[in-house]
Amino acid sequence: MNSEIKNFFYPLSICVVGASTKEKSIGYELLHTISNYGYKGMILPVNPKAESVLGYKCYKSIEEINDRIDLAIIVVPKQFAEDAVDELLRKNVKSILLITAGFKEIGKEGEEVEKRIVEKIKSAGARLVGPNCMGVINALPDVKLNATFVAEKPETGNTGFFSQSGALGAAVLNSLRETDVKFAHFISAGNKADINENDLLRFWQNDDNIKTLTFYLESFVNGEEFLKPFIKGEITKPVIILKAGKTSGGMKAASSHTGALSSKDKVVDASLKQFGIVRVNNIDEMFNTAKGLENFPIPKGRRVAVVTNAGGPAILTVDSLEKEHLELAELSEETKTKLREVVHPEGSVNNPVDLLPGANADTYKKVNELVTADENVDAVISIFVEPVMVQPFEVVESVYDVKTEKPIMQVYLPLPEFWDTYRRDSKKHLPVFRKPEDPAEVLSNMLYYSESKELMDKHRKEY
Amino acid sequence: MNSEIKNFFYPLSICVVGASTKEKSIGYELLHTISNYGYKGMILPVNPKAESVLGYKCYKSIEEINDRIDLAIIVVPKQFAEDAVDELLRKNVKSILLITAGFKEIGKEGEEVEKRIVEKIKSAGARLVGPNCMGVINALPDVKLNATFVAEKPETGNTGFFSQSGALGAAVLNSLRETDVKFAHFISAGNKADINENDLLRFWQNDDNIKTLTFYLESFVNGEEFLKPFIKGEITKPVIILKAGKTSGGMKAASSHTGALSSKDKVVDASLKQFGIVRVNNIDEMFNTAKGLENFPIPKGRRVAVVTNAGGPAILTVDSLEKEHLELAELSEETKTKLREVVHPEGSVNNPVDLLPGANADTYKKVNELVTADENVDAVISIFVEPVMVQPFEVVESVYDVKTEKPIMQVYLPLPEFWDTYRRDSKKHLPVFRKPEDPAEVLSNMLYYSESKELMDKHRKEY
Repeated sequence: MNSEIKNFFYPLSICVVGASTKEKSIGYELLHTISNYGYKGMILPVNPKAESVLGYKCYKSIEEINDRIDLAIIVVPKQFAEDAVDELLRKNVKSILLITAGFKEIGKEGEEVEKRIVEKIKSAGARLVGPNCMGVINALPDVKLNATFVAEKPETGNTGFFSQSGALGAAVLNSLRETDVKFAHFISAGNKADINENDLLRFWQNDDNIKTLTFYLESFVNGEEFLKPFIKGEITKPVIILKAGKTSGGMKAASSHTGALSSKDKVVDASLKQFGIVRVNNIDEMFNTAKGLENFPIPKGRRVAVVTNAGGPAILTVDSLEKEHLELAELSEETKTKLREVVHPEGSVNNPVDLLPGANADTYKKVNELVTADENVDAVISIFVEPVMVQPFEVVESVYDVKTEKPIMQVYLPLPEFWDTYRRDSKKHLPVFRKPEDPAEVLSNMLYYSESKELMDKHRKEY
Repeated sequence: MNSEIKNFFYPLSICVVGASTKEKSIGYELLHTISNYGYKGMILPVNPKAESVLGYKCYKSIEEINDRIDLAIIVVPKQFAEDAVDELLRKNVKSILLITAGFKEIGKEGEEVEKRIVEKIKSAGARLVGPNCMGVINALPDVKLNATFVAEKPETGNTGFFSQSGALGAAVLNSLRETDVKFAHFISAGNKADINENDLLRFWQNDDNIKTLTFYLESFVNGEEFLKPFIKGEITKPVIILKAGKTSGGMKAASSHTGALSSKDKVVDASLKQFGIVRVNNIDEMFNTAKGLENFPIPKGRRVAVVTNAGGPAILTVDSLEKEHLELAELSEETKTKLREVVHPEGSVNNPVDLLPGANADTYKKVNELVTADENVDAVISIFVEPVMVQPFEVVESVYDVKTEKPIMQVYLPLPEFWDTYRRDSKKHLPVFRKPEDPAEVLSNMLYYSESKELMDKHRKEY
């Protein structure tokens, strides 16, 4: 693995250039977040005026540091950024994260400074993330590095999340406790002056901690470069992209932001499709799809059984199946006969299987076992609306205990209290979807991914 | 106003037939919810075996009650339902809410009992809501009736919400604290054996407490009947419909549920469009649109200014504008010159106006004042991603303090704590949207509504 890039996520020591004792300043908040999330490595703050910051011994200058610096994080005002880079390169630091803004994105003058910095970094054999970015996170328990100024404590997952927009990254981080999004690595790439999506695509493909790659992009630095590893068959993990600036107005807006030049949308779309890259329409779809690919087996076909304790949401789910070109499975007579023994006499054993509000954990488990065993069924969506009489937690756990090689995705419409309980007490802690329409979208993306992959593998063998 | 229907929402006394002392039973939970929400009228529980339930004196039979019963709520097991109806009619009760399930929706036998009950009720000049439903709510402070078994305490709004599905109603109620949906009236209509969407359309049109009508429907009892008041020009309030069973599979599912026969979707779509009825695609869009119509002026045109402290979300917003056939406004030179004095020198005074993360309440307020004053602008979407240094609450309040006749809709991507603060402390408590794509959808629906209305008024004058 490329060790300069690796050090952004797995550094044994970090130096924070511009650490500050002033609360609410970026130099303070960043260090506070790093400390608060429990970073396992050595922290080396630099500040010419302070003895210590947040209990860490402070260095007057970079030069003064004798320890090896795996990763340097610069948060000084922009007029001091270039000097900081110079000093770090003299110290032989190879991985530099430049959070400071005010470069290419603000015009000619900033662009020149940025160019100079990149040239210096490149000729020193070092690598740069940023400038104008929000930082990086490694949520893995051995590292626990949150080098951003969003003071959340992300839970550990297996997704790599690349965001060209710092704010969008921040918005995702801000809402983690509501969305239950989990990732292993996060990187806000800012102006992408050096490290960009092409680097992360290769890096994450080779990092065993990453199962799924997600990218929020406003532009491609070099589309051809991005597609090359796909052409060569080097990318074996699912890649999900939210490409903003789809419309001409959005494209114009994107090009003024982070100084990026957006690519023609139709060209983007066609290219991504050719290589089984999942293109999504919004942030929710991106992370729901990542959750699906990481946590559930890919269905073998498009026939879906819906299990529910409530009619209305099930109908919305059935509507969404057709929208996503999935089918409502035709249950076998054998399954229906067996279901008849478990389902309430006034419920329905046809698909959607309606258990009525009284259905408990036991019923849900048995019914999900029966429908997954049916050879006419490729996937199950199990819906639960919280009634008064049934414990929602027991239901979700019992359904995710069903032994099957088919995906069962649960949609939950509970009282808000449920989510805390689930987060705290669930054993498997598999994703639970919040909208009747979500699983169909996810299943459809999973199928698209696996079908494209199969097709590509076939083509590759033929030629 | 029709007093039989009025009594479902404004009863001075309610009788609960089947009240129970057994926790977790529907007869207990319903009474508990009624009591807990603070119903202002008289509560008369009926239970042959109990002296009192939840502190309320209990009657052995309906006959024993001497007070006038404005609304009777039946939650007895289905085999006793018909007897309860008979007794209530003997008491001259005119409004009966039959929550009990097990009628038309379960087949022939249930259908016959349901038919008999309806005939008896009709010949007595009474009205029935249900059976197989989840109850009614009036959230207005003078009434405070939550006659459902969802123990939430809805905040008061101006929407009427009709749900053909009890579970979907329950799902909406379950998530009120997360969605900030507010309504005045809620009715779960179940099998619609008597009272249906046609009744509520007319009733809510004539009730001054209702500003916007929302319907979740799986079928129309009589489409022509529903459209009649529109044809006559009697409906002057916005009507928003989520019609499930859009696809053939969904339609089939809908017809087994609540025994409804779904209507052909294309016919539905065309008919609704002709009368300016807003048809939405999901629950979020339904309530977001209702929030928009109730709380913001309708824009005079399609030109939207976007104000933001963050590039990424703004680009997603701009993408959504084009999807909804709205335009990115071209700001006048005068506005740009004035903006230049307020906006950070490295920000952007073109639309989208980018204030950069440091922008505070004062900047947001001034910028929103300037863009709303621009005659090239019809509406504003103001986006705020929470950075470390700025108080989100002050920003949202200051923007909603801007004096203008144009809609300003705010999108907020804050830490989760913000929502509680806003709910508790906000003075105007206007809706805040959670996704960059939401306001475009809402503005587009508002424009569709007002343009259709204008066209209909014109046609009406011409003929």
